[in-house]
Amino acid sequence: MNERKTLKINQDGHLEIGGVIARDLAKEYGTPLYVMDQQYIEDMCSIYAKTLQDEYGDGMIAYASKAFSCKEIYRIVNAMGVGADVVSGGEIYTALKAGFPMEKVCFHGNNKTLQELNLAVKEKVGLIVLDSYSEADILNDICKNAGVFQKVLIRVNPGVEAHTHHFIQTANIDSKFGFSIVSGEAEEMILHVKSKSNLDLQGLHCHIGSQIFEQKSFVLAVNKMTDFYKMLKDRHGIEFPVLNLGGGFGIWYADGDAKKKLNDYAEYIKIIAKELKKAVVEKGLIKPFLILEPGRSIVGEAGVTLYTVGRIKTIRDVKNYIAIDGGMFDNPRFALYQAKYTVIPAERAKETPALKYTIAGKCCESGDIIAEDVYLPNMNEGDLIAVLSTGAYNYSMSSNYNRNLIPPVVMVKDGKSRYAVKPQTYEDIIRNDI
Amino acid sequence: MNERKTLKINQDGHLEIGGVIARDLAKEYGTPLYVMDQQYIEDMCSIYAKTLQDEYGDGMIAYASKAFSCKEIYRIVNAMGVGADVVSGGEIYTALKAGFPMEKVCFHGNNKTLQELNLAVKEKVGLIVLDSYSEADILNDICKNAGVFQKVLIRVNPGVEAHTHHFIQTANIDSKFGFSIVSGEAEEMILHVKSKSNLDLQGLHCHIGSQIFEQKSFVLAVNKMTDFYKMLKDRHGIEFPVLNLGGGFGIWYADGDAKKKLNDYAEYIKIIAKELKKAVVEKGLIKPFLILEPGRSIVGEAGVTLYTVGRIKTIRDVKNYIAIDGGMFDNPRFALYQAKYTVIPAERAKETPALKYTIAGKCCESGDIIAEDVYLPNMNEGDLIAVLSTGAYNYSMSSNYNRNLIPPVVMVKDGKSRYAVKPQTYEDIIRNDI
Repeated sequence: MNERKTLKINQDGHLEIGGVIARDLAKEYGTPLYVMDQQYIEDMCSIYAKTLQDEYGDGMIAYASKAFSCKEIYRIVNAMGVGADVVSGGEIYTALKAGFPMEKVCFHGNNKTLQELNLAVKEKVGLIVLDSYSEADILNDICKNAGVFQKVLIRVNPGVEAHTHHFIQTANIDSKFGFSIVSGEAEEMILHVKSKSNLDLQGLHCHIGSQIFEQKSFVLAVNKMTDFYKMLKDRHGIEFPVLNLGGGFGIWYADGDAKKKLNDYAEYIKIIAKELKKAVVEKGLIKPFLILEPGRSIVGEAGVTLYTVGRIKTIRDVKNYIAIDGGMFDNPRFALYQAKYTVIPAERAKETPALKYTIAGKCCESGDIIAEDVYLPNMNEGDLIAVLSTGAYNYSMSSNYNRNLIPPVVMVKDGKSRYAVKPQTYEDIIRNDI
Repeated sequence: MNERKTLKINQDGHLEIGGVIARDLAKEYGTPLYVMDQQYIEDMCSIYAKTLQDEYGDGMIAYASKAFSCKEIYRIVNAMGVGADVVSGGEIYTALKAGFPMEKVCFHGNNKTLQELNLAVKEKVGLIVLDSYSEADILNDICKNAGVFQKVLIRVNPGVEAHTHHFIQTANIDSKFGFSIVSGEAEEMILHVKSKSNLDLQGLHCHIGSQIFEQKSFVLAVNKMTDFYKMLKDRHGIEFPVLNLGGGFGIWYADGDAKKKLNDYAEYIKIIAKELKKAVVEKGLIKPFLILEPGRSIVGEAGVTLYTVGRIKTIRDVKNYIAIDGGMFDNPRFALYQAKYTVIPAERAKETPALKYTIAGKCCESGDIIAEDVYLPNMNEGDLIAVLSTGAYNYSMSSNYNRNLIPPVVMVKDGKSRYAVKPQTYEDIIRNDI
């Protein structure tokens, strides 16, 4: 695992998160349990914000809250001076109820509904990122009626497709998101939005992908975007005061992913800052307010899911199954993407692995697997299992599949723990049933 | 599409479900909307139950409620004389609150928790299907304390793996479910359970897969199971009064799947009944009470999801995207299994297709697709889209991903509609947030 001050194996072989022993959390809150290391989240926010300030200057880190959204996370990132990227009315509503400053919110989405756009304007969301002509038209009408001059960005597709392990420079223009720069469609959309009376086009947004490890991808994105900004200046005299480069910084899930220390994440910001500063000078552009939107990398490694081992089934000469009390309802990422996770025996992490196990969930579905081919000591019913790096896209994608309850979320910091999201009850799952 | 009396295109080219025009439903309830054709559900229950009665005799259809669970569905199937298969405490709770008779419930699952087993015994669930040694031990203790003699089955693996289009006779013994007959593990488990003071072992359960079209798979399962019953009788003098053959009957989703009329589904039951009657005579067995557990085939084709077309994006020379107001949060089956669906323009279903579209959801994720390469007339914003055969594993797998709201479920019958599940509110999604 990727040990750090707030996530470690103690002398007795117990997993400790934020100074609290995993077993104590399981005893107090039960399992399955999402545990979030608040210090890690704060450290990531702080490192990103400070690096952006020191290395670039004017800009904002906007936490991509689709990775993990609940009232408490908006409070935490807000306290760290970080903004938020939201993608729905539900996320706006949650941020609002947490007292999040709406001027620090970027609202994304390929198909924001009328209600969502109305909510965003009414609540004075800082930036709305447009992704279609009709959205621009609809939003302009809303703003006209409300007497608002709304700051907007346009999502463009710079033709940079970044993969975890491959780097493809050819334009990937087949996406439901954005307008292609290469084809001229982005330029046309910009002129369309510029013609709108109540939209204040501040700049462009791009997002080149997820779970990206190569810094080169971001360098390329900076260059494509600033080339385009220069072209717009030369051809149309348009100079944008804002540039939003999205997120996508890769994190550590399992062996095979680059292990990173906290400060290594600063490198993403440093290289973008350096490249952008250089590019604006070379290309004669005004230095834009730089927005970056990390989500997974702020909360992903902060999260640990705790499960209790239930049935253990040894199929002779075939496989050893461990069934846990969670599954694809709290973590659908194996079922969706065959995502790899690191599993550790939370109370016996120093013991020598003895057997290869497949960790299965409790859903009535063969594909309900959390991890395959995991080496663990001989496991027993009642043992505590920890799955690491579950802070992003686990709680946020959780469901009541099989009418299982969504586990609660607990924040830990400085040896103390508290609920961020309380446990569901059976009453919750039938609440809307007639 | 698979037209039928309660699902059809009317003369004006409008989709009608249960005698209600889709557009009227969208107007009354908004979109996205899950619509369920109650008559279809009732007809399927009735056909299954009647065929089982007529062709076999003593037995029970148990609706596999993980396909779609809410209070109303338990009421509907109960009124049709059908039992239920449940897989969690949440499903037991929902059935209970709907007044479902617990003696007609089979409780499945590879890792039922202690709380769930306690709940099942307390509420007098008819049959608990055991899937491990320790579960047998734990359940026996619970029953001993409660002074209950609990009827149970054991889940076995007959070594029949059935696919939609392939038929594999070789044992697929690598499963988190069941005990292998071939390896002798099932026999050992049976003797273990027989030794328990408070467990009344009534028979065995198997489930050979999902979305199966070949009736041959079921014939093979009947034969493997009765061979095993005969062996148990010969070797141990054990005669089981119950046989549960699970479900897995394939339904129509899209071109390529066999189109079926309602009565075609009776064939599954007929062939199983015929084969089983023959086998028990040939093998000298008592004729067991036969339990069959269709889920998908009872509710799948009953469901239609209605969406409103939002942004339409034509990427020149590449693709036409339609973004709808739903997505992987209400239907994750494309993202999970690349499941194919039939999409129709609900108000213009008689128009000639003009363009190939990809139907994308509104989630901030590239993989949020509902269907690819769908031929439709030229679509406009505000048009109504219907996705067919969404009654199974759509609502039940839905999530608040991106903090989108889970759509409500409406039952339609005889030209009338009513909520089965009310719409979520933003208040619902922050209810447990601290």
